Amino acid sequence: MKYAEKILNTPSSFTRDILKVAGQEDVISFAGGLPNPISFPVEDLQNAINHAIEVHGPKLFQYSATEGYLPLRQYVADKLNKGQEGLDIQPEDILITTGSQQALEMISQVMIDKGDGIVMEEPGYLGAIQAFHLTEPTFHPVTLTDEGLNVAELENMLKNNQNIKFIYTVPNFHNPTGITYTKENRDAIYDVVKNYDVILIEDDPYGDLRWNGEKIPYIGAGRLENSVVLGSFSKIVTPGMRLGYIVTKNKELLNHVITAKQAADLHTNIFSQIVIHEYLAKNDLEAHVSKIIALYESQANAMLEAMAKYFPSSVKFTKPDGGMFIWVTLEEGVSSLDLFYKAMEEKVAFVPGDPFYTSKTNVNTFRLNYTNSSPEVIEEGIKRLGKLLHEVSTTEKALV
Amino acid sequence: MKYAEKILNTPSSFTRDILKVAGQEDVISFAGGLPNPISFPVEDLQNAINHAIEVHGPKLFQYSATEGYLPLRQYVADKLNKGQEGLDIQPEDILITTGSQQALEMISQVMIDKGDGIVMEEPGYLGAIQAFHLTEPTFHPVTLTDEGLNVAELENMLKNNQNIKFIYTVPNFHNPTGITYTKENRDAIYDVVKNYDVILIEDDPYGDLRWNGEKIPYIGAGRLENSVVLGSFSKIVTPGMRLGYIVTKNKELLNHVITAKQAADLHTNIFSQIVIHEYLAKNDLEAHVSKIIALYESQANAMLEAMAKYFPSSVKFTKPDGGMFIWVTLEEGVSSLDLFYKAMEEKVAFVPGDPFYTSKTNVNTFRLNYTNSSPEVIEEGIKRLGKLLHEVSTTEKALV
Repeated sequence: MKYAEKILNTPSSFTRDILKVAGQEDVISFAGGLPNPISFPVEDLQNAINHAIEVHGPKLFQYSATEGYLPLRQYVADKLNKGQEGLDIQPEDILITTGSQQALEMISQVMIDKGDGIVMEEPGYLGAIQAFHLTEPTFHPVTLTDEGLNVAELENMLKNNQNIKFIYTVPNFHNPTGITYTKENRDAIYDVVKNYDVILIEDDPYGDLRWNGEKIPYIGAGRLENSVVLGSFSKIVTPGMRLGYIVTKNKELLNHVITAKQAADLHTNIFSQIVIHEYLAKNDLEAHVSKIIALYESQANAMLEAMAKYFPSSVKFTKPDGGMFIWVTLEEGVSSLDLFYKAMEEKVAFVPGDPFYTSKTNVNTFRLNYTNSSPEVIEEGIKRLGKLLHEVSTTEKALV
Repeated sequence: MKYAEKILNTPSSFTRDILKVAGQEDVISFAGGLPNPISFPVEDLQNAINHAIEVHGPKLFQYSATEGYLPLRQYVADKLNKGQEGLDIQPEDILITTGSQQALEMISQVMIDKGDGIVMEEPGYLGAIQAFHLTEPTFHPVTLTDEGLNVAELENMLKNNQNIKFIYTVPNFHNPTGITYTKENRDAIYDVVKNYDVILIEDDPYGDLRWNGEKIPYIGAGRLENSVVLGSFSKIVTPGMRLGYIVTKNKELLNHVITAKQAADLHTNIFSQIVIHEYLAKNDLEAHVSKIIALYESQANAMLEAMAKYFPSSVKFTKPDGGMFIWVTLEEGVSSLDLFYKAMEEKVAFVPGDPFYTSKTNVNTFRLNYTNSSPEVIEEGIKRLGKLLHEVSTTEKALV
């Protein structure tokens, strides 16, 4: 049996593969990107379900429109417009997707013929890298700094490659690094991108989860013709129901994505769409999210404090203002993949940096997640990692 | 903005596009493939939801495994093994998909590089044609007869085209024609296909909905190495929750599909998977399905009787033993698309044959669905169509 080249070249998800191991009861896992179960308003969802069944009956269980449930699209439009001045998003600018992961694959299907270019943050979200792989693109990595994208590199990439179709970014509480693009960086990116016939994707699953600083406006939304914003209910209500959305004022693009959506799964689970809309209409989402934020902030602080205490000073790490991740950079030349295998022996899991890069392997970086462990477990896990890092550090020095 | 060639060549779904028009209140629609709402066991599903939330709590709302919910995979395996002697399906041979539509797109992604061959029934399911289009295949149409595939044509296709990757079939209560492959036809297909390195897909969303004759064993399942069976809960429990499955003993193939699934949407809605499993575990599915069957049989008979009464004798149509569709063949040279526009003026909708073919247009066939209208509405709709058909028939004769 000869399989398609594109699937043979598509990496299996490292995160999901190691989650199987990391999911073992005695492993302390900083590997996944799992929201804390506190973020699932189970009781309010139960009420929303009962009410939805009472009001809508069989409609919850029938086939429905590819574009998504209109009141949910209206809610998303209102939420976005309320969150940023000058936006004028309408329900018809929105397609509900089966998680925002599906939006990634569909946009790639719609834009990329084999060999076409995609600008990827380096490092960038591994799920996006995987989804894009299926369309056999050429990846153009642009370095991610603490401020955001390296704008000079970005401009060079766009200038020297005619076939770049889109730029993929996670500007808020970036996955995997936890950093947030600054206002200045966003404006500088906009000033470059506006001159090219290229789509700017801002994937924003974590934007609501901010505990420090002020919300920063989107890079492209509201001012760039080919702006695409992706959002999700996974981190603020439930990931299990797989509900995300794609927002763009480019109608031609959205129509093509709708065709891809018909081919992919006809429409998004309508039961879940109506239930989530009922929940959102009847509950105070901000109050709910503020509980999630308070929890994640305390968990992030527990991890940062433990890292300061247990990690060698040569190890650098980011300090997120929100979201779910911290990014660790080891001394030059130290392999995080080697550390991963040693850590697994000590029953601690994280995601080594390799799957987040399109142009490098055997990197010295890795991703830590703090949202799904208690402060006590976080301290214990970081302590074990710290011990290993001190050993690595000593060994390295002995070798030098 | 330059979009990908593959999306520009992918047809938008004719059915879903006309459903928007056909959905208007005063239109009698035989166009959709919508199950009758009676097939949604709303009260039992509500009980299943309550029980699932009580027992599983936050697990219903968290991320979950790409392969699907293990007890549901076990249920599907048991159901298949019980339904046919000699099958030995295990849960690990099963992947839960976001509707069986998703299985179509993923198998195509996994198997087809641009130009690779797909054998399609002519006519065949338009949703499959659409999903496959995204991978830019070469379609090899094989004529569908009242008995099933034309086996001589199939053998010629396989012999003369080295690059054929899979054969797509709907052997039970076929969409769009309503026919069922005979036992003899299935055996003849097996005898040909077993000699080629090719996958045989048997898409079986309607197999449980039989009111006449005996269940016939699968063509390939249980005896063909590269057998793939697709199934769905859409027609027997609910389409709104988008739950289907893919079954194959080819582990390499299934692993590639799992990678494609990670890229497509990470995993299928776990809330819906657990709820449907609760429903199936606690209720008598056969008793529920027998109610659906009784209803559809009476609707099918109402339509067949009305067609015998109102259609000109020159018009031929199939007489299904189950499922949801009747296929109408007009006199040679009469365009069903022309008829469609005339019928819409009379507020009756159906799906003209064109989108079900990969090698022809302007055909003289069309599809009727009877599951979503009462016998009275069916009679009125067929009466209106009959009037138009007599006019067409007369006009044609006058022209000759």
